[in-house]
Amino acid sequence: MNTPDIIAKKRDGLELTGDEIGHIITGLMDGSVADYQMAALLMAIYLKGMTTAETLDLTRRMLHSGTVLDPLGGGRLAVDKHSTGGVGDKTSLIVAPVVAAAGVHVPMISGRALGHSGGTLDKLESIPGFRTGLTLAEFRRALDRVGVALIGQTAEIAPADKKIYALRDVTATVGARPLMTASIMSKKLAEGIDGLVLDVKVGSGAFLKSDGEVDALASLMVEIARGMGKSAVALITDMNQPLGRAVGNSIEVIESAETLKGNGPDDLNHLCRELSAEMLLLGRAVQNLDEGRELYRRMIASGSALEKLRQIITEQGGDPRVCDDYGLLPQASSESPILAKRSGYVAAIDAEAIGRASMLLGAGRSRVEDSIDPAVGIMVAAKLGDHIRQGAPLAVLAYNDAKKLEEASRLVEAAYTLQDALARPPELLKSRIA
Amino acid sequence: MNTPDIIAKKRDGLELTGDEIGHIITGLMDGSVADYQMAALLMAIYLKGMTTAETLDLTRRMLHSGTVLDPLGGGRLAVDKHSTGGVGDKTSLIVAPVVAAAGVHVPMISGRALGHSGGTLDKLESIPGFRTGLTLAEFRRALDRVGVALIGQTAEIAPADKKIYALRDVTATVGARPLMTASIMSKKLAEGIDGLVLDVKVGSGAFLKSDGEVDALASLMVEIARGMGKSAVALITDMNQPLGRAVGNSIEVIESAETLKGNGPDDLNHLCRELSAEMLLLGRAVQNLDEGRELYRRMIASGSALEKLRQIITEQGGDPRVCDDYGLLPQASSESPILAKRSGYVAAIDAEAIGRASMLLGAGRSRVEDSIDPAVGIMVAAKLGDHIRQGAPLAVLAYNDAKKLEEASRLVEAAYTLQDALARPPELLKSRIA
Repeated sequence: MNTPDIIAKKRDGLELTGDEIGHIITGLMDGSVADYQMAALLMAIYLKGMTTAETLDLTRRMLHSGTVLDPLGGGRLAVDKHSTGGVGDKTSLIVAPVVAAAGVHVPMISGRALGHSGGTLDKLESIPGFRTGLTLAEFRRALDRVGVALIGQTAEIAPADKKIYALRDVTATVGARPLMTASIMSKKLAEGIDGLVLDVKVGSGAFLKSDGEVDALASLMVEIARGMGKSAVALITDMNQPLGRAVGNSIEVIESAETLKGNGPDDLNHLCRELSAEMLLLGRAVQNLDEGRELYRRMIASGSALEKLRQIITEQGGDPRVCDDYGLLPQASSESPILAKRSGYVAAIDAEAIGRASMLLGAGRSRVEDSIDPAVGIMVAAKLGDHIRQGAPLAVLAYNDAKKLEEASRLVEAAYTLQDALARPPELLKSRIA
Repeated sequence: MNTPDIIAKKRDGLELTGDEIGHIITGLMDGSVADYQMAALLMAIYLKGMTTAETLDLTRRMLHSGTVLDPLGGGRLAVDKHSTGGVGDKTSLIVAPVVAAAGVHVPMISGRALGHSGGTLDKLESIPGFRTGLTLAEFRRALDRVGVALIGQTAEIAPADKKIYALRDVTATVGARPLMTASIMSKKLAEGIDGLVLDVKVGSGAFLKSDGEVDALASLMVEIARGMGKSAVALITDMNQPLGRAVGNSIEVIESAETLKGNGPDDLNHLCRELSAEMLLLGRAVQNLDEGRELYRRMIASGSALEKLRQIITEQGGDPRVCDDYGLLPQASSESPILAKRSGYVAAIDAEAIGRASMLLGAGRSRVEDSIDPAVGIMVAAKLGDHIRQGAPLAVLAYNDAKKLEEASRLVEAAYTLQDALARPPELLKSRIA
């Protein structure tokens, strides 16, 4: 098989065979397919697409470029949740302990902040001592003992995805649906899961801004997960404003702990309840979604979920007292409110701009190699549909270094659209693809 | 300027600015644009195209990635000819001395054999001692003394094209019209010419097989040459059979010398007369094409053109006696005829297959790094429209190494289609784009 011939076939819009896709992935790993050949193929895939069969083959080859764990078993199913990324999305920190407390295994391999989007690993690492860099053996041991673990991608997991993702990032091919799907699925399917719940976000703070794109991506991901023999469901959820109120790292841990104590913001609590119910259903801990929602409530009311979070933190080397004494988490030295210049209803929030502002303050990364400041971030005071008086705060910026404060403040201020009439806020749950 | 943003713009079918194209070419040369980024951009260009303005900018940036010579001047214009490549195409060896003998400078940077297509440099190097690897200083001196020189691309000429061509070759992006045009033009315009005649070939032995593609490519090349301030004309010529009868290296030198003595095959002589007339017109040695054709005849009849070939050979280190004593050229040790299995008229010849057979015998290269055998090749006995008796030779294979003889013989035999009725051979000159 000849690499340029395979590239030419995709360039001309033809369907690649499993063997041809195998040749590419094997060659990428052993060096016989050069990075520039892969880059040309990625652009051809971006522009010409892939069939479901091709996407399934690609996912399978990328998955098997590395270690694939088996579900832990022992009479329990394992279920994970994946979100396509947004602003203030701390659901993993809440649903993982809830679902594990209810007796379903949650082996979760998560990502880091990049661009306007936050990362579960960075949030967890704001907890003093918390280690996300477990080995696969430690991951399995933690799962066995606590029923849940949250770690970063290891070198053994889908190494082909690592190479391909690095290339997509610099060749303007990140947004291709089959590539996004194969990238996400090859990592998630390596975790040893029986089922997967997808939170596919759409709106001003999401990677995808249009409903059509999102429906197609969610359907493809569900189809691929099933093609790989896993149960799967996707919720399409609104990301036209930050989720909850905290956007940052330690402040998102605090908001997560509060949610596990029953004090979470309505939107965050609502989404976590729906995601948990889906996970509990796939994990066969309940018979239907209503039972799942009820179990979510019980896990929180009883304190079991918060206790599970304490166990996770302890198991992964962190200080579990942070759940009760937030003063043990990193704190920003200064705060600066953004005040409304007029009175009115909040009609639109550019959530991506809020995410970028948080990144500028140091809570995120513009490049993979940037370091982050766990203490800083943005507390969102005004949400969609709220009525705000002139001079009242829209948001509060928590910062340590005033260098980028002005730029971040401008971004946050410009992110808000206030108007006289009340505009109905979007529904948080837009649709469900099962 | 950000490289992924520029790639994304072309991916989305938008027009790149001159500055953006400049960023890419400069970055490719200084390493700040990676090969894989260029490869992704090349695929996007292949699939989304480029406007004439973009192609002109790309040509200009590639041209100025290296040394650009000025025309030699001294009261004479400089004109070159470029062919898009074919089988048995030795016109450069004929038109260069003819046009130079008539007082027009001919600074000619040529290519090598690759795949089924022959290369002027390899043909010249079959002449004992002939050096095609002159430095630019030697090139200018030869031009100054003889009025014509034929060399290979040097490291100083369009180095961006060298890098891009190497990438196109392995990423299935060779065939993109703007890339082909910019590649050819960036080399030709570096030679120091006032005008350029393009021989754009179409047919079974050409790179492009369809008339529509060829017209579009020829028009774009003429437009780009003019946009760079050069006079230009394109002839679209038939390549549905080898040009002349010799396909190889030393045997093509012999056929060229014979043509300069007035004994050339009709088709080769006809095409050389037309190309020379166009070059002489652009070089203002004549007032119209008929005068150009007449001057071509005079340069041959007087022996001036053959004498100019001797001067070229002498100036570039070769033995000029080869023009008269063909025994001084490399000779193949063995010959093997391909005999007609039936009587009939030659209705079709797969010229690419003839070129591939010649390559298999050793006259060409399947990969850039292969070495060639200057002595071997194929003498075509039967041309389109000829009536051939059963058992008469269609072609004669001249070889030194019998290893690939059988495969080459099969290719040549299968290349011929004989039928009972006479099919009119195609017109050699199909159209002229001025």
